Amino acid sequence: MNLLNKKGVVIRNIPRSAPDIIARFAAAGVATTHEAFNRQGLMDARIRPIQQSVSVAGNAVTVLVTPGDNWMFHVAVEQCHPGDVLVVAPSSLCTDGFFGDLLATSLMAHGVNTLIADVGVRDTQTLREMGFTVWSRAINAQGTVKETLGSVNVPVICGGQLVTPGDIIVADDDGVVVIPHCAAELVLEKASARIKNEEVKRQRLAQGETGLDIYNMREKLRQKGLCYYDNPEDVE
Amino acid sequence: MNLLNKKGVVIRNIPRSAPDIIARFAAAGVATTHEAFNRQGLMDARIRPIQQSVSVAGNAVTVLVTPGDNWMFHVAVEQCHPGDVLVVAPSSLCTDGFFGDLLATSLMAHGVNTLIADVGVRDTQTLREMGFTVWSRAINAQGTVKETLGSVNVPVICGGQLVTPGDIIVADDDGVVVIPHCAAELVLEKASARIKNEEVKRQRLAQGETGLDIYNMREKLRQKGLCYYDNPEDVE
Amino acid sequence: MNLLNKKGVVIRNIPRSAPDIIARFAAAGVATTHEAFNRQGLMDARIRPIQQSVSVAGNAVTVLVTPGDNWMFHVAVEQCHPGDVLVVAPSSLCTDGFFGDLLATSLMAHGVNTLIADVGVRDTQTLREMGFTVWSRAINAQGTVKETLGSVNVPVICGGQLVTPGDIIVADDDGVVVIPHCAAELVLEKASARIKNEEVKRQRLAQGETGLDIYNMREKLRQKGLCYYDNPEDVE
Amino acid sequence: MNLLNKKGVVIRNIPRSAPDIIARFAAAGVATTHEAFNRQGLMDARIRPIQQSVSVAGNAVTVLVTPGDNWMFHVAVEQCHPGDVLVVAPSSLCTDGFFGDLLATSLMAHGVNTLIADVGVRDTQTLREMGFTVWSRAINAQGTVKETLGSVNVPVICGGQLVTPGDIIVADDDGVVVIPHCAAELVLEKASARIKNEEVKRQRLAQGETGLDIYNMREKLRQKGLCYYDNPEDVE
Amino acid sequence: MNLLNKKGVVIRNIPRSAPDIIARFAAAGVATTHEAFNRQGLMDARIRPIQQSVSVAGNAVTVLVTPGDNWMFHVAVEQCHPGDVLVVAPSSLCTDGFFGDLLATSLMAHGVNTLIADVGVRDTQTLREMGFTVWSRAINAQGTVKETLGSVNVPVICGGQLVTPGDIIVADDDGVVVIPHCAAELVLEKASARIKNEEVKRQRLAQGETGLDIYNMREKLRQKGLCYYDNPEDVE
Amino acid sequence: MNLLNKKGVVIRNIPRSAPDIIARFAAAGVATTHEAFNRQGLMDARIRPIQQSVSVAGNAVTVLVTPGDNWMFHVAVEQCHPGDVLVVAPSSLCTDGFFGDLLATSLMAHGVNTLIADVGVRDTQTLREMGFTVWSRAINAQGTVKETLGSVNVPVICGGQLVTPGDIIVADDDGVVVIPHCAAELVLEKASARIKNEEVKRQRLAQGETGLDIYNMREKLRQKGLCYYDNPEDVE
Repeated sequence: MNLLNKKGVVIRNIPRSAPDIIARFAAAGVATTHEAFNRQGLMDARIRPIQQSVSVAGNAVTVLVTPGDNWMFHVAVEQCHPGDVLVVAPSSLCTDGFFGDLLATSLMAHGVNTLIADVGVRDTQTLREMGFTVWSRAINAQGTVKETLGSVNVPVICGGQLVTPGDIIVADDDGVVVIPHCAAELVLEKASARIKNEEVKRQRLAQGETGLDIYNMREKLRQKGLCYYDNPEDVE
Repeated sequence: MNLLNKKGVVIRNIPRSAPDIIARFAAAGVATTHEAFNRQGLMDARIRPIQQSVSVAGNAVTVLVTPGDNWMFHVAVEQCHPGDVLVVAPSSLCTDGFFGDLLATSLMAHGVNTLIADVGVRDTQTLREMGFTVWSRAINAQGTVKETLGSVNVPVICGGQLVTPGDIIVADDDGVVVIPHCAAELVLEKASARIKNEEVKRQRLAQGETGLDIYNMREKLRQKGLCYYDNPEDVE
Repeated sequence: MNLLNKKGVVIRNIPRSAPDIIARFAAAGVATTHEAFNRQGLMDARIRPIQQSVSVAGNAVTVLVTPGDNWMFHVAVEQCHPGDVLVVAPSSLCTDGFFGDLLATSLMAHGVNTLIADVGVRDTQTLREMGFTVWSRAINAQGTVKETLGSVNVPVICGGQLVTPGDIIVADDDGVVVIPHCAAELVLEKASARIKNEEVKRQRLAQGETGLDIYNMREKLRQKGLCYYDNPEDVE
Repeated sequence: MNLLNKKGVVIRNIPRSAPDIIARFAAAGVATTHEAFNRQGLMDARIRPIQQSVSVAGNAVTVLVTPGDNWMFHVAVEQCHPGDVLVVAPSSLCTDGFFGDLLATSLMAHGVNTLIADVGVRDTQTLREMGFTVWSRAINAQGTVKETLGSVNVPVICGGQLVTPGDIIVADDDGVVVIPHCAAELVLEKASARIKNEEVKRQRLAQGETGLDIYNMREKLRQKGLCYYDNPEDVE
Repeated sequence: MNLLNKKGVVIRNIPRSAPDIIARFAAAGVATTHEAFNRQGLMDARIRPIQQSVSVAGNAVTVLVTPGDNWMFHVAVEQCHPGDVLVVAPSSLCTDGFFGDLLATSLMAHGVNTLIADVGVRDTQTLREMGFTVWSRAINAQGTVKETLGSVNVPVICGGQLVTPGDIIVADDDGVVVIPHCAAELVLEKASARIKNEEVKRQRLAQGETGLDIYNMREKLRQKGLCYYDNPEDVE
Repeated sequence: MNLLNKKGVVIRNIPRSAPDIIARFAAAGVATTHEAFNRQGLMDARIRPIQQSVSVAGNAVTVLVTPGDNWMFHVAVEQCHPGDVLVVAPSSLCTDGFFGDLLATSLMAHGVNTLIADVGVRDTQTLREMGFTVWSRAINAQGTVKETLGSVNVPVICGGQLVTPGDIIVADDDGVVVIPHCAAELVLEKASARIKNEEVKRQRLAQGETGLDIYNMREKLRQKGLCYYDNPEDVE
């Protein structure tokens, strides 16, 4: 049964990853994870952090909300386990401030410190002071009501990406990437290889070697027709 | 006589609030004040702070400018009292940099530390270093001329909200809200009640109680048809 | 021969300015330099810094890239001298993340610490930690390929401004401005005069004198028809 | 008592203008009316027509709605008189489709053919076929609910302009302008003078006379320092 | 196996709907279909038609493309059946002109007349003249290359909605909606009921009855606290 | 001497192309011309036509204006020859309505029927009725003043492209492209070849041949690794 965007549903059980898996994703960061997942899963660049220099990861507890209505956040708190990441998508575009310091207090009491929201948030100064991290589409003091059902833990589309409950979310200053739960190990393996490979390159580059030489690009550039001239007037 | 957006006028006297009123608004912040005023008065979310973690309040000295012309800022300085907030609206959309460190120096010499500008500003690093706080629509080094009359202390529309001279402006990381001068006491009273109420809730939430229980939401959610399932495949 | 946006070309020699010239531009900053250059050369305000409170200057090494392809960055590294600024323009709009910490490591090994990019960048936290400064159109973890030729050191249009290799780039929190290489001395001279002039004004303004008096504006305002009233109801 | 944006209120009586006043505004169009009103009252350029080549005018019946809720449209229909223009503003930004062919049918049955909406609309093909004219911020099939009170005939801010019930709305391909009810005659008078004046100029311009001569601009341009050269290389 | 956004894959067989099903969706249009599907499946309002007053429907043949590369369009043509709708999504944001009159000629030769593109298109005048209908994110003459693999008939996210090959696409002036293949009959049934119901209402509304009476809203409005006043000054 | 964006200058003589050259560019249209010029010269896609189904070409008479000031349009009229195209760029971003039916009347009296404007225009209905074609960044009734000098026939940057007086402008529903005056013959030659080549392809495609076969793509796709499967479940 396809539950994508289905309203009025709460699913209690979602797959979760071992803490070390989560920790390794947080350490890898968004750009590396995205590369390791064949450049899939990157959310829209308009989902921006309200804080700087933080990298986090966790399993997605998804929340489907209706425009201007944050009722489902309260339903979601109870379904969270420590370390989960709340991922919120509206059923149609809305940038109101769905989330503030009270809900953050409630989530932190349940061990959750991160929100990914394709809607607006408020109380951003307090959130930063609390150490609650947020990536959102907008900052907006406009409050919301509690009238209409959405869902918790159905698949949603957030920031242009499909998020299935239990998927791994990685977020840092570069944005947010989603990794399907079942692909976690494979992606981590490729990410580790990539990190190792980059470390070697970084050392060579830091010593002044050029990418042209490290990656043997000179011949390919010549074949494609790249021409070097000493001065502009030498170009015929 | 309706003075909204009328050009060529300077009004010398505006209503001002007692310092403790202003201080209490600054402490309440934008989200709470906006809620206490029945969610009215919030400026457009595109008016963003150039600094972080500051909450201010003050009475509005309004400035109507024409596109690319900052002459009226100089006229406005003389009309300011210590603690006032300059609120600037253009007669048509313009994101040039109308305001920089020299004008800020002049305003600070007259006791004014805050600008709300539905136009662009520049010298933002210096402004932050001076402790002059700004919420603006843009950051832009493009300067302006001094050729055309606007007005000081006529009603203007800034960030999509009507601002009448003397209105109370509250601004923090969440945005900017406008409270009519005559509504100040009533709004503060409601804001105080809200803060007290939220403090109680915050403590309960911090101890792990859920909003579902604190607000008695479970029955209402059930009536609306919310269904819980252990797993996705249980949904029929 | 007009080389604007011509692909497949690398020019080795570009004019460079004396270090003290560069240092004086960095000290003057964007707003002052832009004013001194008759308000020309300011890039589009959408080119934003990823860091705060830094002012830099340098000669432009230009890079023309094709959408989603960062191959030419590697070619550019070899053409850089210490203190140069890399200026990157795409042949058509693209906000992918063309640039990250590895390329920054390579550039820093060649003495280059600044990128102006009319495209997206990634690894922004690491870049800030490395002290590599960036002004870009977007932050985006989406990577790029290395398939198509662009050019190095041909004239390009970046942020809506023509940048010829060797032009002086000045960038700070207010944005980015481009000064033609041959205009450097003249602009610096005017910038110095402006700074001196502003310093005098700043002191007078800081002591509470108004711009109205310093600039003798009162009579001109009167002639244009500005009217003062004590209260709104006095306006007929 | 200030009713701006006040919710839960319906005002039955609004001032209305004589039909010939309305007809003359529709004939004058937006650009001329806006000029005649000293360039005040123009709505934000993002409020765009869904049809082409139509110019309309009428007295504003205002509707304040909450995001995603079109209940108040039904309340408004009953308050309309033939020839009125419905002007709709949301209490916070929302681009859902609040209005479609059924509501248009209802309005047309009450003699109303025009909607100005700072929200979204749908059924646009049918609306055009019915001859119902719309200027809106968005086209969006996303429907709305009927749960929350707004108001009818309180002052609202629509497209960045204050609209008081009974104000005259003029709309054509160039946008929408608002004229306060009491200023109608004065503005029309100035618009007529402007039209007559423009007609004379148009005939002279059509015969090839230049604005330089008609408006005697040559001397002023010379004084400002405009220099003519035969060729680029003549400029020193 | 999850094929979402997987590159390098062409799936030959997709489910298709009976022609009368398709015809009924085209007749129902976007707004009605979207309502009948519980307001799910509506694409982002930035996907706009290049023509006016056309309503179409068909089964989705999906195309995953990489930025600036339209190679997969050619692969897709061969997989199309008459009446299909091509749905194109990029692996990262790109507004280049991926599609023009030659590809349209090829598609029409295979019986396909409609493109839904979350990228840019060009030759729009010719496309309109040919009767080829397009809903796209941009109009842009910027061409693309043919270097990188994408896929045909894997699930993609287009306009913020998941599109699985064979899903039913309905598009008209209001936008584009996606209906899962298996939900077609159910949605059509509800759409038909809705159309019938609306027809009855339309006739009553056209005769001047108000929605207030038809939907029995008066009592509910009174309970929510709506107050009627003859004039503004009556509001206390 | 570099005249780019220099203010206070009018150049009388610009290079112009033979009428048949112009006619052939208009016939080729934007997409073909842009391809023939190696995909260079395309203006930003935000410069949109106010009419549909028109393709024009002509030599650029450039106008540099300051924000909110259209004085230079009047200076420009006198410098126009029949068939020229007016290309207008602001010295900083401004979307006011710089141009309306009176200026169009004046231009048409001098044989000019086309405006390319990186600013706003107004009187769009009248302009369409007059047969005056416009591509602009905005439609806006907001008028402008006549106070500040700009220039006529200096190089400007319009829609992100450098336009030198006398350059050939081609504009149609797809946008606007700029061809340097000296490149005209070469580009036309390549455009003609392209048109001929496309005509052959069009006929083959219209008969149902696929691009896969016409362009021999099958083998290259196979080598890149494209895999065909009958059904999704066949993908391992």
